Amino acid sequence: MSKKKQFVEEITSMDQDFAKWYTDVVKKADLVDYGPVRGSMIIRPYGYAIWENIRDVLDKKIKDTGHENVYMPLFIPESLLQKEKDHIEGFAPEVAWVTHGGSEELAERLCVRPTSEVLFCEHYKDIIHSYRDLPKLYNQWSNVVRWEKTTRPFLRSLEFLWQEGHTCHATKTEAEEETYKMLEVYASVCEDYLAIPVLKGKKTEKEKFAGADFTLTIESMMHDGKALQSGTSHYLGTGFAEAFGIQYTDQDGELKHVHQTSWGFTTRLIGAIIMVHGDDRGLVVPPKVAPTQVMIVPIAQHKEGVLDKAYELKEQLSNQFRVGIDASDKMPGWKFNEYEMKGIPLRIEIGPKDIEKNQAVLVRRDTGEKVFVDLNDLESEITSTLEDIQQELFQKALNNRETKTSVAINMGEFEDALTRDGGGFVKAMWCGKLECEEKIKEETGATSRCIPFEEDKLADNCVSCNEQAKHLVYWGKAY
Amino acid sequence: MSKKKQFVEEITSMDQDFAKWYTDVVKKADLVDYGPVRGSMIIRPYGYAIWENIRDVLDKKIKDTGHENVYMPLFIPESLLQKEKDHIEGFAPEVAWVTHGGSEELAERLCVRPTSEVLFCEHYKDIIHSYRDLPKLYNQWSNVVRWEKTTRPFLRSLEFLWQEGHTCHATKTEAEEETYKMLEVYASVCEDYLAIPVLKGKKTEKEKFAGADFTLTIESMMHDGKALQSGTSHYLGTGFAEAFGIQYTDQDGELKHVHQTSWGFTTRLIGAIIMVHGDDRGLVVPPKVAPTQVMIVPIAQHKEGVLDKAYELKEQLSNQFRVGIDASDKMPGWKFNEYEMKGIPLRIEIGPKDIEKNQAVLVRRDTGEKVFVDLNDLESEITSTLEDIQQELFQKALNNRETKTSVAINMGEFEDALTRDGGGFVKAMWCGKLECEEKIKEETGATSRCIPFEEDKLADNCVSCNEQAKHLVYWGKAY
Repeated sequence: MSKKKQFVEEITSMDQDFAKWYTDVVKKADLVDYGPVRGSMIIRPYGYAIWENIRDVLDKKIKDTGHENVYMPLFIPESLLQKEKDHIEGFAPEVAWVTHGGSEELAERLCVRPTSEVLFCEHYKDIIHSYRDLPKLYNQWSNVVRWEKTTRPFLRSLEFLWQEGHTCHATKTEAEEETYKMLEVYASVCEDYLAIPVLKGKKTEKEKFAGADFTLTIESMMHDGKALQSGTSHYLGTGFAEAFGIQYTDQDGELKHVHQTSWGFTTRLIGAIIMVHGDDRGLVVPPKVAPTQVMIVPIAQHKEGVLDKAYELKEQLSNQFRVGIDASDKMPGWKFNEYEMKGIPLRIEIGPKDIEKNQAVLVRRDTGEKVFVDLNDLESEITSTLEDIQQELFQKALNNRETKTSVAINMGEFEDALTRDGGGFVKAMWCGKLECEEKIKEETGATSRCIPFEEDKLADNCVSCNEQAKHLVYWGKAY
Repeated sequence: MSKKKQFVEEITSMDQDFAKWYTDVVKKADLVDYGPVRGSMIIRPYGYAIWENIRDVLDKKIKDTGHENVYMPLFIPESLLQKEKDHIEGFAPEVAWVTHGGSEELAERLCVRPTSEVLFCEHYKDIIHSYRDLPKLYNQWSNVVRWEKTTRPFLRSLEFLWQEGHTCHATKTEAEEETYKMLEVYASVCEDYLAIPVLKGKKTEKEKFAGADFTLTIESMMHDGKALQSGTSHYLGTGFAEAFGIQYTDQDGELKHVHQTSWGFTTRLIGAIIMVHGDDRGLVVPPKVAPTQVMIVPIAQHKEGVLDKAYELKEQLSNQFRVGIDASDKMPGWKFNEYEMKGIPLRIEIGPKDIEKNQAVLVRRDTGEKVFVDLNDLESEITSTLEDIQQELFQKALNNRETKTSVAINMGEFEDALTRDGGGFVKAMWCGKLECEEKIKEETGATSRCIPFEEDKLADNCVSCNEQAKHLVYWGKAY
């Protein structure tokens, strides 16, 4: 009991201060440390191992859907960034500029890529000539830099890691299909691997990507009721193609502009894992992306046979699971706390009495549930328990989202909904006008998260101006 | 015959102009395109797929030797870079400087990492306290920027991809062991996967890494006799630890500085593959890292059953090999040339007559050898042929190196050796003095490549000054 207490004191509780709880977990679970430049982060081994697992899952899906990985340069000449006007307007305020190489001042400033649309476009212009060259389905894994004023590890940092897909198609239909297809890929990574339920929808004009015709998004809800944009997929139309001259000769002999898409998924999803599944004892990592799924903690390990048995178990289980063992001379209680803080899904305790009875103790991180398992049944029990954890984490997150989603017919209900439970999603009808969207943000702090793919009609009129409604919108305060 | 000729005309021959041949292959094999900033490169899908294979092999070895991956920030404040004096002196002339974030001028310039020693040191200072925290075995995969004046794709470019290992140890012995161990890992990747034989040795003081106590290197020889530094591993001593204050309390209660290493392996190895194995028909990729090991080309594919059989073969072989198929409407001759240019190790031709006889034609990229293989024996034949290719590529490269390695007792022999075959390695004794090393470079253009781990004594005196010799050195002109 005293050991538990020790940790409760070490990290702030979620209810007390969610933001502080978040940064506590990020640090105490050894995910991140701060870099020497304000707002930059060091992704530590445990955090990076989670990212590697997410990356591997997503990379396979990206390749399975026919995309090829490439690598584009880090620097963009200023003149190139300026070719697409909406794009430069959106990104200019948040780019870092290189002005000197060695001791020489450069003739033209170089921007450190905040995203790579213009680099891909400049390349596509050179390699696309005929309809036979289409579609071009490229992706890259890289770092990008955005000069953010307010930063928070994973969620909003000076530099982050991501993948960015960039594709060219002969027709609008095909490019739009790609835009939707890649959003589904992102949704599947979130739901099936990260156990994070997502809302799929379209961004409003105000919230879409700078330079896109439209932006699709998956939005997830954090434990505190705030929204996190978790992946976006943009249909770029022919705007970039026109600015960069990406043309192909079609089968009919005519010269046409390509239709483009881009889509990205980032390290901020590690932040989502923390804020969706974590609790007052720390991180909870979904089994499918957990660097260590099962941690073995020997009990009374100085007694004869305990360590041998513990290592034997590790050996045996390693064929099927990602297994760790802590045979250090620290106290078991310390170890329990440490691996709970790190959110390792399952703990196995094994001591002299267990060995005598040919059993082990299995402890779930998410529920704290403890069961004694016959060693002959250990593998099947672990398999089914990991599956249960994965599913129940998803279900719990879904319940949280449903509990914290309200319907508002007028602004009174809207504001009530946002104050109740400290936030959540508000479903409300909208007229489609920018002024109303801005007014709602000003009055409530909530932004439009998306127009969901599956639209209900909750009312005839806009929640704000009361004129005829065009769309159902999910609103929420966001990270 | 006319098809062959077509390609011979398209790329410069090696003997005529090796440098031009190299850039021709890089472009025609679709490995690289030039980026919008001078000296930057776009790594295209085929080039990146080779890099992914190299990375996967090396990443596994790095993890198997107990290292953990992390991610450090891209930017280094100028004051941090200046903490270790030798280091900043070595790197300052070739770094890119960020001076503005958005529209604001920064209070302190930020350097885009040319390597990350100082970032790791600044982090290690915070996380290492006790002997229990040691060793710390970290690695990162990232991009780095070096503002080079003369650039060439893969070999020397403004930005490249690499991994950099950074480790801290309690003792000198342990850190030195690590330095040697990681050089062996690099040597194994080169020899066992890239089929590139390497010389292992120590760099002279002049050629060592800026800030290191000593640098170990693997040196390989390109087809034209020039050397390529292919991987380096540095013992940093306690210099960085002293500059950054990385100290730990030892078991004896005393505060001590850690001993450090760093080591790196880069995309330049793709350049080595090109220049070691390539020929006048293009690239030759060693089977173990080839993105496609076997390319199926259907012959007379409009005839009934040919395409079905070809796809059936692809399906069947894909369990064991990385297999491609080209069922496009291009002529088989065009396809042969294309996949020879790309250096795919094996081609399978299958047409109506082959199907009748239950056979296929297997063509080796490296030797051009053609064999008819019974379809029942296809898998075993491919397995053994890929193994043969891998081995023979290595042997051929080794023969090239041995043929182009000479012994020189005096400077006359030294210069003769360098002009014969247009270069190669010269083995010659050296007194250990910087002046002689510089003089040899000035007179011959050759630099010291390494003092080999296995030293012979070829003569008593230095090849240049004729005073007493200290070391055998491999000299050569280098990329």
